[in-house]
Amino acid sequence: MKISGRHYRTIWPREGGTVEIIDQTKLPHRFETVTLRNVQDAAHAIKAMIVRGAPLIGATAAYGMALAMREDASDEALDRAHDLLLATRPTAVNLHWALARMRDLLRNRPRAERASLAWEEAARIADEDVETCRAIGEHGLKILREAAAKKNGRTLNVLTHCNAGWLACVDWGTALAPLYMAHDAGVPLHVWVDETRPRNQGASLTAFELGGHGVPHTVIADNAGGHYMQAGEVDLCIVGTDRVTAKGDVANKIGTYLKALAAHDNAVPFYVALPSSTIDWTLKNGRDIPIEERSADELLKMTGRLPDGGLATVEIAAPGSPGANPAFDVTPARLVTGFITERGTCAANAEGLLSLFPEKKGKA
Amino acid sequence: MKISGRHYRTIWPREGGTVEIIDQTKLPHRFETVTLRNVQDAAHAIKAMIVRGAPLIGATAAYGMALAMREDASDEALDRAHDLLLATRPTAVNLHWALARMRDLLRNRPRAERASLAWEEAARIADEDVETCRAIGEHGLKILREAAAKKNGRTLNVLTHCNAGWLACVDWGTALAPLYMAHDAGVPLHVWVDETRPRNQGASLTAFELGGHGVPHTVIADNAGGHYMQAGEVDLCIVGTDRVTAKGDVANKIGTYLKALAAHDNAVPFYVALPSSTIDWTLKNGRDIPIEERSADELLKMTGRLPDGGLATVEIAAPGSPGANPAFDVTPARLVTGFITERGTCAANAEGLLSLFPEKKGKA
Repeated sequence: MKISGRHYRTIWPREGGTVEIIDQTKLPHRFETVTLRNVQDAAHAIKAMIVRGAPLIGATAAYGMALAMREDASDEALDRAHDLLLATRPTAVNLHWALARMRDLLRNRPRAERASLAWEEAARIADEDVETCRAIGEHGLKILREAAAKKNGRTLNVLTHCNAGWLACVDWGTALAPLYMAHDAGVPLHVWVDETRPRNQGASLTAFELGGHGVPHTVIADNAGGHYMQAGEVDLCIVGTDRVTAKGDVANKIGTYLKALAAHDNAVPFYVALPSSTIDWTLKNGRDIPIEERSADELLKMTGRLPDGGLATVEIAAPGSPGANPAFDVTPARLVTGFITERGTCAANAEGLLSLFPEKKGKA
Repeated sequence: MKISGRHYRTIWPREGGTVEIIDQTKLPHRFETVTLRNVQDAAHAIKAMIVRGAPLIGATAAYGMALAMREDASDEALDRAHDLLLATRPTAVNLHWALARMRDLLRNRPRAERASLAWEEAARIADEDVETCRAIGEHGLKILREAAAKKNGRTLNVLTHCNAGWLACVDWGTALAPLYMAHDAGVPLHVWVDETRPRNQGASLTAFELGGHGVPHTVIADNAGGHYMQAGEVDLCIVGTDRVTAKGDVANKIGTYLKALAAHDNAVPFYVALPSSTIDWTLKNGRDIPIEERSADELLKMTGRLPDGGLATVEIAAPGSPGANPAFDVTPARLVTGFITERGTCAANAEGLLSLFPEKKGKA
């Protein structure tokens, strides 16, 4: 996607064997890139949320493995890099998936080949993610076209939570890919952008993306979505996910569950867009997904632009009051209308998922 | 209630015929009071949310009428003051109630008496609110004791949204009065405080109040409450309200509906505490309650403390992205476990309300 007219991916290799990423902690206030020189840089970028979003976390971890192999291609270094990267974020399953794929590939290959193989495989994971998101966009576009057809020319209002756009992936995005395609195809579209406290990924990243592409949108407090659904001003919800169980429970950014409840209460379709690498076939129930607890500072402090253009971080809560910050919640499959994957759409249950991914039968 | 050991109300008359209020836009960063010298000051204080909370809005409006009568006790001035104050906030019904009470009292009295009568009546409304909140606290305390008894000595976890504490009233509070009394009575208690975007009344005012009184509490993003309910870490919800219809629908701070949905989905009791002046016997359905739309700046900008102790306001969203800011939503009566009023508790429906307020039969 484009920033100020120039095409970017969120992660790309550079001459000399380093990896470049967009610093998402600075957005929407500053556009800066960061160079990853070794596996520690990659692990820090994931943990500190310089990169975030399940698919991009996977791609960054893959490049982190490649950076590790350049320094030391031993079995021990392979395991060490794998474990270091795996420990950064507990909830997203793409991280597990990308790391397992890299390790499985490299383990049985000669050490001398590992660095170049790892580099190629990381690039392949990134390219595949772009293609996967494009396919998700195409399948989601059909749903949006059908929903728009019922509006008789009136604007289709879609609500999204957090950021599942191109900044969460390598390009295109998951939940936002269909929206970009619908907008480009001339579907009259408006997006309600949940602010997404405490990290404000909606107000900062999703609004930044949609604004950059010219998609009409409005930032709202996370509290407001239910009211707009009651008022008939939301036709459809689309969100991303960090992990989907084999039965269809959905871990996503904290607050997704509340929006799914409101959508269900108001008969608003609630879709989850995901690459199949987000499905954890080893887990059935959402309650078994580990939920990352992050620093309360993310809630109690806020960074923004001063009138003079500088940035400042202010403390916003009552002095001395503690905070708690669970980063994800689990939306039960019963509240999800359907999944949009790179292979098509399906019902949010075991049968639906297996109909798209029959090779997983017996493994789930 | 106390601030730094000194007892305060949120509004009090001063020698010389002015009215003093706590500037709630400065909390929790600064404790400052503001002097209201005329009806325009009172209207501005309500509109700019220097005072907020349905009961305190009512008391401030009553004092605003008294200030108006000191300047001009004509019928025209009476109507003008009434209309000016009524236009400040559309959702809270206590405002209508207090203004109608003042006008009805004053209209048929000689002009020469109106100023002193108005002053006395405003003081009476304030005193009655204190007594009403104390009674709500006593009735709510019974519910908390029963809930605590089921915990076998473990801490009772209560979630609240926005601020319905003493800062929203003249003293005590509505939703928080039972919590103060339970804490004082030795019930082991912990309060989950919803941040309450976009104005952060939870993180700033409720946390400030609870901290000042020594009640254990934790500030959480509005997004987090559903997750904690799923995890069994919320035993009960109590919120306040700005208007309750005769059938029991509840207008309260935006986001209340989402918490009520989550409470219902997890079989967590959801109580609404209110003085009977908050009941709009003329309305049946919540969808007929006007919902105030406030400036998007409340969402897109944030004020807090800098490391040097100064205050700064920063812009937090993507530059150029528009925002929308509905201030309230309506929770359908079906999601409310019960009402806690100054006369006792009742079911959230017409029969329940009329059982406590039988004098309203035939009027509803």
